[in-house]
Amino acid sequence: MAGFIIHSVLVTGANRGIGLELVKQFLGKSNPPEWVFATCRDPEGVQAQELQNLASRHPNLVIVVLEITDPASIKAAAVVVEEHLKGSGLNLLINNAGIVRQSTLETESLEGMSLVYTTNVTGPLLVTQAFLPLLKKAAQGSNQKGLSCSKAAIVNISSECGSIQNVYLWHIGQALSYRCSKAALNMLTKCQSLGYRDNGILSVAVHPGWVQTDMGNSAAFTAPMTVDVSVREILNMLTTLSEKDNGTFVDWEGKVLPW
Amino acid sequence: MAGFIIHSVLVTGANRGIGLELVKQFLGKSNPPEWVFATCRDPEGVQAQELQNLASRHPNLVIVVLEITDPASIKAAAVVVEEHLKGSGLNLLINNAGIVRQSTLETESLEGMSLVYTTNVTGPLLVTQAFLPLLKKAAQGSNQKGLSCSKAAIVNISSECGSIQNVYLWHIGQALSYRCSKAALNMLTKCQSLGYRDNGILSVAVHPGWVQTDMGNSAAFTAPMTVDVSVREILNMLTTLSEKDNGTFVDWEGKVLPW
Ligand SMILES: NC(=O)c1ccc[n+]([C@@H]2O[C@H](COP(=O)([O-])OP(=O)(O)OC[C@H]3O[C@@H](n4cnc5c(N)ncnc54)[C@H](OP(=O)(O)O)[C@@H]3O)[C@@H](O)[C@H]2O)c1
Ligand SMILES: NC(=O)c1ccc[n+]([C@@H]2O[C@H](COP(=O)([O-])OP(=O)(O)OC[C@H]3O[C@@H](n4cnc5c(N)ncnc54)[C@H](OP(=O)(O)O)[C@@H]3O)[C@@H](O)[C@H]2O)c1
Repeated sequence: MAGFIIHSVLVTGANRGIGLELVKQFLGKSNPPEWVFATCRDPEGVQAQELQNLASRHPNLVIVVLEITDPASIKAAAVVVEEHLKGSGLNLLINNAGIVRQSTLETESLEGMSLVYTTNVTGPLLVTQAFLPLLKKAAQGSNQKGLSCSKAAIVNISSECGSIQNVYLWHIGQALSYRCSKAALNMLTKCQSLGYRDNGILSVAVHPGWVQTDMGNSAAFTAPMTVDVSVREILNMLTTLSEKDNGTFVDWEGKVLPW
Repeated sequence: MAGFIIHSVLVTGANRGIGLELVKQFLGKSNPPEWVFATCRDPEGVQAQELQNLASRHPNLVIVVLEITDPASIKAAAVVVEEHLKGSGLNLLINNAGIVRQSTLETESLEGMSLVYTTNVTGPLLVTQAFLPLLKKAAQGSNQKGLSCSKAAIVNISSECGSIQNVYLWHIGQALSYRCSKAALNMLTKCQSLGYRDNGILSVAVHPGWVQTDMGNSAAFTAPMTVDVSVREILNMLTTLSEKDNGTFVDWEGKVLPW
């Protein structure tokens, strides 16, 4: 990660799982970002204790309230981040927050479909809308040519479960609402890549692997990959992305996955 | 369409556009179905006048109320259809009802995302759940081997706009919520194909072409294909489908589209 110098990064769903580990590893870099914005919906809750402990040791870590299903909360978070950045832009937006429901074709309900979609697709869309001016500012302020994560990028944490071609882990769980949401998130990513490339912003969908988090272990199976390894590989992989990767769907190692 | 003898078909969103034309052409066949169930949300409204006229001439046409965003309405419709079928199954379910909103990456809202998803994805899911017992019954009662639309099938009317690979007509309109919903509908179709093939039910996602309907002409452009031609080709194409097509995404001519 030596060449990966970014001024500022924001991670949603940063109080546990992959989001928390992303924050930890950004802070642990030899050349950490000037600002790490870690958003979560309940910064005072017990589930945010580890993040609070980190913040007490790292003055460049800012915890921001953000409930991803609430447009007002998203807008308020963008205002807070903008104040901290004092005129400079945001380089890297990682839309990581997400939920899964263990539903099937037969048991899936309107409520389940709506909640999972709002959280996993509409949330990343609205977050990106709110932070777009800051991403554009980062791209404009950069003297780097082309597209890269250190210039300005939207990284949507998707899942191979959302690959219509592969239907990853179908035998483990149908998780219908989740699969539909991640396929839709991949479409959102593709659209963002077309809409924002001329603004100098890279967009990519990333499958983090099957990872040992509350979500990864929720199907009564133990996931094969540690969160430490997954995030380390993702951060390495992000440093390698350029124009040619804009609008693609890649796994933690950078392998392109089929839609 | 000579070899295409089906006992019963149900079409959602059948009061105008592609849905109405599907009903007309089913009724106009030399060997029409014994039952054509045409669902719409307001059978008494002016928008259903043509359907009512058809019903007065065709005793095998049954108009059924069905609001696709309302689970209770869907369940009630399934009860009505079951009563008419008097113990036999439903061969062909065509999930056709759908909406589009001319939204962009910047203007799309939570409300727009939710309404379009509920209509275009959750609707077809819940309709299929409700009619699944009748589809299974049709498959069980058939002496045909393998999978086919004349035995038992779920046809989801999707759109090439939902192809993440092709992002069809992006220059005409971003229609973000619509694209995300159709990508998710394709995932639903793939899941249905995996979940129901052992029940003898075929599942397929169909792009009808860019067709001259209220929706097709809504982007201030005139669509190139007449609804008559689109539906004629779709009905021909459906007769050719078998196991190998289960879980695919095809256009009106049967050409496989990329996810
Ligand atoms: N783990 C895997 O195997 C795996 C595989 C493929 C993809 N992914 C993806 O990776 C991402 C992170 O997953 P994870 O495994 O780290 O899951 P996790 O351990 O369950 O953590 C999910 C995070 O999302 C947050 N979140 C959920 N709903 C939210 C909302 N409405 N508003 C704000 N934050 C919300 C949670 O906050 P709270 O603590 O407040 O609930 C939590 O911080 C997800 O997008 C997931 O789909 C994971
Ligand atoms: N036309 C094209 O170029 C094109 C291209 C690709 C895909 N498609 C797809 O083809 C399908 C049919 O489209 P179309 O062109 O025929 O559109 P259309 O002329 O606008 O007709 C849409 C139909 O869906 C019904 N509908 C909408 N919301 C509903 C709800 N909540 N409950 C029940 N019915 C509802 C409408 O009923 P009301 O009259 O009550 O509104 C109408 O019958 C859609 O799935 C569309 O996405 C169309």
